[in-house]
Amino acid sequence: MKKCASILLLIAAFSFSVYGQRKIVNLPDLPGYVTLKCDFHLHTVFSDGSVWPLVRVGEAYRDGLDAIAITDHLEYTPGKAFIPVNHNAAWEISKNMARDYNIMLVQGAEITRDMPPGHINALFIRDASLLAVDSVMDVCEAAIKQGAFLQWNHPGWKSQEPDGIPKMYEIHKKLIEKGWLHGIEFFNHNEYYPLVMTFCKQNNLAVMANSDDHHVISEDYKEPEYTNRPMTLVFAKERTYDALREALFAGRTLAYFRDVIAGREEYAKTFFNECISVGKPYYQNERSIFLEIVNRSDVPFYLINGVHEAPPSINLPANSITRLAISRKAASPLNYDVKNVITGENEVLKIELKY
Amino acid sequence: MKKCASILLLIAAFSFSVYGQRKIVNLPDLPGYVTLKCDFHLHTVFSDGSVWPLVRVGEAYRDGLDAIAITDHLEYTPGKAFIPVNHNAAWEISKNMARDYNIMLVQGAEITRDMPPGHINALFIRDASLLAVDSVMDVCEAAIKQGAFLQWNHPGWKSQEPDGIPKMYEIHKKLIEKGWLHGIEFFNHNEYYPLVMTFCKQNNLAVMANSDDHHVISEDYKEPEYTNRPMTLVFAKERTYDALREALFAGRTLAYFRDVIAGREEYAKTFFNECISVGKPYYQNERSIFLEIVNRSDVPFYLINGVHEAPPSINLPANSITRLAISRKAASPLNYDVKNVITGENEVLKIELKY
Amino acid sequence: MKKCASILLLIAAFSFSVYGQRKIVNLPDLPGYVTLKCDFHLHTVFSDGSVWPLVRVGEAYRDGLDAIAITDHLEYTPGKAFIPVNHNAAWEISKNMARDYNIMLVQGAEITRDMPPGHINALFIRDASLLAVDSVMDVCEAAIKQGAFLQWNHPGWKSQEPDGIPKMYEIHKKLIEKGWLHGIEFFNHNEYYPLVMTFCKQNNLAVMANSDDHHVISEDYKEPEYTNRPMTLVFAKERTYDALREALFAGRTLAYFRDVIAGREEYAKTFFNECISVGKPYYQNERSIFLEIVNRSDVPFYLINGVHEAPPSINLPANSITRLAISRKAASPLNYDVKNVITGENEVLKIELKY
Amino acid sequence: MKKCASILLLIAAFSFSVYGQRKIVNLPDLPGYVTLKCDFHLHTVFSDGSVWPLVRVGEAYRDGLDAIAITDHLEYTPGKAFIPVNHNAAWEISKNMARDYNIMLVQGAEITRDMPPGHINALFIRDASLLAVDSVMDVCEAAIKQGAFLQWNHPGWKSQEPDGIPKMYEIHKKLIEKGWLHGIEFFNHNEYYPLVMTFCKQNNLAVMANSDDHHVISEDYKEPEYTNRPMTLVFAKERTYDALREALFAGRTLAYFRDVIAGREEYAKTFFNECISVGKPYYQNERSIFLEIVNRSDVPFYLINGVHEAPPSINLPANSITRLAISRKAASPLNYDVKNVITGENEVLKIELKY
Repeated sequence: MKKCASILLLIAAFSFSVYGQRKIVNLPDLPGYVTLKCDFHLHTVFSDGSVWPLVRVGEAYRDGLDAIAITDHLEYTPGKAFIPVNHNAAWEISKNMARDYNIMLVQGAEITRDMPPGHINALFIRDASLLAVDSVMDVCEAAIKQGAFLQWNHPGWKSQEPDGIPKMYEIHKKLIEKGWLHGIEFFNHNEYYPLVMTFCKQNNLAVMANSDDHHVISEDYKEPEYTNRPMTLVFAKERTYDALREALFAGRTLAYFRDVIAGREEYAKTFFNECISVGKPYYQNERSIFLEIVNRSDVPFYLINGVHEAPPSINLPANSITRLAISRKAASPLNYDVKNVITGENEVLKIELKY
Repeated sequence: MKKCASILLLIAAFSFSVYGQRKIVNLPDLPGYVTLKCDFHLHTVFSDGSVWPLVRVGEAYRDGLDAIAITDHLEYTPGKAFIPVNHNAAWEISKNMARDYNIMLVQGAEITRDMPPGHINALFIRDASLLAVDSVMDVCEAAIKQGAFLQWNHPGWKSQEPDGIPKMYEIHKKLIEKGWLHGIEFFNHNEYYPLVMTFCKQNNLAVMANSDDHHVISEDYKEPEYTNRPMTLVFAKERTYDALREALFAGRTLAYFRDVIAGREEYAKTFFNECISVGKPYYQNERSIFLEIVNRSDVPFYLINGVHEAPPSINLPANSITRLAISRKAASPLNYDVKNVITGENEVLKIELKY
Repeated sequence: MKKCASILLLIAAFSFSVYGQRKIVNLPDLPGYVTLKCDFHLHTVFSDGSVWPLVRVGEAYRDGLDAIAITDHLEYTPGKAFIPVNHNAAWEISKNMARDYNIMLVQGAEITRDMPPGHINALFIRDASLLAVDSVMDVCEAAIKQGAFLQWNHPGWKSQEPDGIPKMYEIHKKLIEKGWLHGIEFFNHNEYYPLVMTFCKQNNLAVMANSDDHHVISEDYKEPEYTNRPMTLVFAKERTYDALREALFAGRTLAYFRDVIAGREEYAKTFFNECISVGKPYYQNERSIFLEIVNRSDVPFYLINGVHEAPPSINLPANSITRLAISRKAASPLNYDVKNVITGENEVLKIELKY
Repeated sequence: MKKCASILLLIAAFSFSVYGQRKIVNLPDLPGYVTLKCDFHLHTVFSDGSVWPLVRVGEAYRDGLDAIAITDHLEYTPGKAFIPVNHNAAWEISKNMARDYNIMLVQGAEITRDMPPGHINALFIRDASLLAVDSVMDVCEAAIKQGAFLQWNHPGWKSQEPDGIPKMYEIHKKLIEKGWLHGIEFFNHNEYYPLVMTFCKQNNLAVMANSDDHHVISEDYKEPEYTNRPMTLVFAKERTYDALREALFAGRTLAYFRDVIAGREEYAKTFFNECISVGKPYYQNERSIFLEIVNRSDVPFYLINGVHEAPPSINLPANSITRLAISRKAASPLNYDVKNVITGENEVLKIELKY
């Protein structure tokens, strides 16, 4: 018989070797804020996921995340013939490993109802078992009493909205009115919902991106198709649980997945400017000015709609230096739209490059 | 709420997309036998593993295996505060998916005792709950009554044999005498035990290779360090459950892991000859004869101890063609030792190349 | 000073270690024919390429090709301030290494004119210097006198045909009339020209695919974007220079690049059937028949337009086994179009799967 | 005929797409100095290399280098039957592309003699043709007159020193006495020579690392075996040609290849300290203090010989965060040897971690 006293020790020890190397996610802090990389939507064998809760902590460690929430379904536990329903189990199993691995573990649960209101994550709760009540409004109230941040999940999920378009129903409006809805997923797993940008803007809600992973992160998000899992970037005053929570309620987030950033223009613009630096010209001739733009982040940027003799488009690949030969007829600054930084349902970020 | 009626359907459907592509493992059949790729040692959340049983079927499908056994510990179930002990659960959950994915699922359980006798897998059983008895000899008898093939696991595991050397204790001899021991692991997870070659030869037991995986196969066996998980190659008269069982009891196996093959010389030699073909010389000059050797298998072969003007060593990389310029003074056939094909505790396969 | 007697020895020795491992290209032979993998369009520093000729032989060896032609431009030698024009230099430098590495080196040259007639490769010539004459018809005649196979290169190249559409000019018709044109490139570098299918069919010419590489093959064709360089597959009676030449003049070719095969239906259909095997059903229930299709080739196949209860589309990934659950209401054989096997300007291969 | 006026334009344009993305090499600047990444030893078809000179500029651009020297052999030009000897050709062909791509191109040549003195690179010269004289001392003098930095190449190369051990001959001592030798290669291609550390220390010479590449960088240095080519890191007051030259003569270098850094202790220590940051403890219990060490560089560090209850060894992988649980009995700072930072023939860097 293996000599380990408890499964926590056993699997934690095992995980240490599998997950030993913690990646640095190259995303800049913003002035005054630290950028926390978070995934607030994850499942385990305690609802319909296929992994033990500690796997989620190990994955977050390896992927360089700062915070995660395990959010098993409250109302959907298909393995219950083999595993008794226990809404706090994943939290209890994971919290010590998360503490030891410097991951902020946010306790959560997924309220799992037909549309409307669909699925809602209750985050920052303290006892998920108190949320196992019948009426969905009662569940939300029970969560709010525990100080929860409520996030509307995958509002355009085709299993619930066959046309793929999120709809704001009466119950959502009511939740917002009461101050019981705080964020909406723009990215979920490998989907996104443009209309969420409008919902968030109109109601001052946080734009979120989460994996909603049921399986194994490294198998679901593999290169070359995927270079990263979905992450909610949270701009917090410091790297603490309280500061994380404050920032979320204040809506200081960007949604990040693949090569796309989405969120409020003020954060998106500052974020872009912190990623990019434009070097001084290193050579000039009668026709052109040669310079380099450095992108030190993991996010590539696709600049389009250049005008007035400027290059019509510029790609700034992630973690790379891009060389430009700009016509002397082009005037500084150069104005561009950033095709992959989304600031509204039909809007992208507008930036300028000064040299 | 997700609309699926049962977790079996749900996760099976999910797995289909994750595991959709089934690899061809390039290992030749032997004359008269089909080569079955098998892993007879796997864990799940029903003992101390970190995945749901269906994950094991999906992984086997993707990896191109023909047969697996899920062998959760009978006596070690550290998650029992959350998951009630049920020795047949993994089998019951997995059997339909295995059938649909053309994986032969062998029912199994790991008898988990201090050394001696250490850990023993009971394979081809029909009801694991009947094995939950106190005396280890009684467990073995109960397994034998169900027709079990008994495999001694990781006999040199340092947690049980601190010097790493397998030892044949009285109880092992007694099991062999009674005909209650049929195979021994030469490879387990990422370890191997040379002495197992002698034990198997002296007692006419099958040489086995298994992953003993507790976590996620694709994370535990990753390129470039690993190109494949450990596999027991079984030479069966046909690809059926009964033929698989017959071949195992007859000891028609080779152990395969990384770039090493281990087992009885008769199978190793035939296997090598089926992997390799020596082409006719395509050019000759006064000094040399030029020819190509094709290795159509996933196993590289390292030929050493060449004599009499032959190249002293030849590497035949997997799935590749190797070009040779052989001195006219060398005589055909060329004799070599195959460094990575192990036929005894201190023996490797001897082969000849005819051209 | 390095001790090597000649650059041929020096670089050949060097290349041996860089290019030591020769890949097996998994493409089946056809009944009665061996499938030769060829690239008949390559450049070196002796025209406007950036590598020494031996590099082309080393690359071909590593990539598992059977034959190549180095076809430097006759009329375009921009490095001549540093390298004197010598149309036979690449051939002379490479022929011994090719012989030693079992590559059939076809002597060639690219006739490099404005459109019409554009660029034409003369293959199987014996002295390229005799082709340095003024009139393009004289060049072709000189090539034909040496027994050349003449291939029209990249007929839709936008530098010569700004709309990208190949056009059959008078001079091409004249060449065909005289029997002086034998093949046309369908794939060139990373382009393709659908209309070539019609030109080849109407005039009974060979469909060709070549890299036209000027730089380094491994940098121009890199995973994940590219899994292989363009290749002309030639179905020859044996693997000899003469049989290669005979097969080309007979038009027994398919063009292969990325995941596309293009050419005459008779070769395409036989090729597909040699790649694929449909297994016997391994399980049936009241609704479905379960079976596996094995694709042992490097080419994936995308089956579309399934009808009558059959799966509407089936992907058969390269070197993989695909599992199907077919409705009992579907009748064998299942009929499909193979989206990526092109048999005409607007035609794809039609196949049937029997089970 | 292709429409380009000159090969320079043609290949420069072509290279732009092949080499379009310029990597950021993650190596920190030192206080007061910018860290220039350089390769001062490269060959082309103008001696015994297999690529055109522009390839060297494109590779340097892609690899994120700041400076290179093309150093074709003066006395060894085996392709001269096809390419007339021209010692300035590579320089003339490359200089404009280097300027446009922001690569500092250092003109160079390799004096290629039997040992002693073996091979010596003359760097920062202005006319290589003046170095084609008979006596090696005359060559060195001619180089010195042009302001050359002279680097002794691969002093332990087995073709010249069969035992692999560099030897300081009379001629080397004489060169040093005259001030005509300024650096020695510690790393060359894939070799290294420990004794070079002593030679450099005793004579105040720069420690160098160069690829000496004759072929294609991306094929010679491929993952997973190689993550980078050899580079001389030069600590210059600014990123200019003059500052680069000043820093080299001042001996402000480190040699870098694979996972090894070698050079003077003062630069090695500062370099290490700029790579590493030790975080504040994020958790403590009665036994341990938990903290993270961030390594933002491309160089992993292997700390060994920990004492007094500290972890005996710590690996700090490149671009990663390493989590430590340190016993409360260990005292800050922790003292370690850095196994892969070489500061002498038998010395490695000693560092301390404060927390």
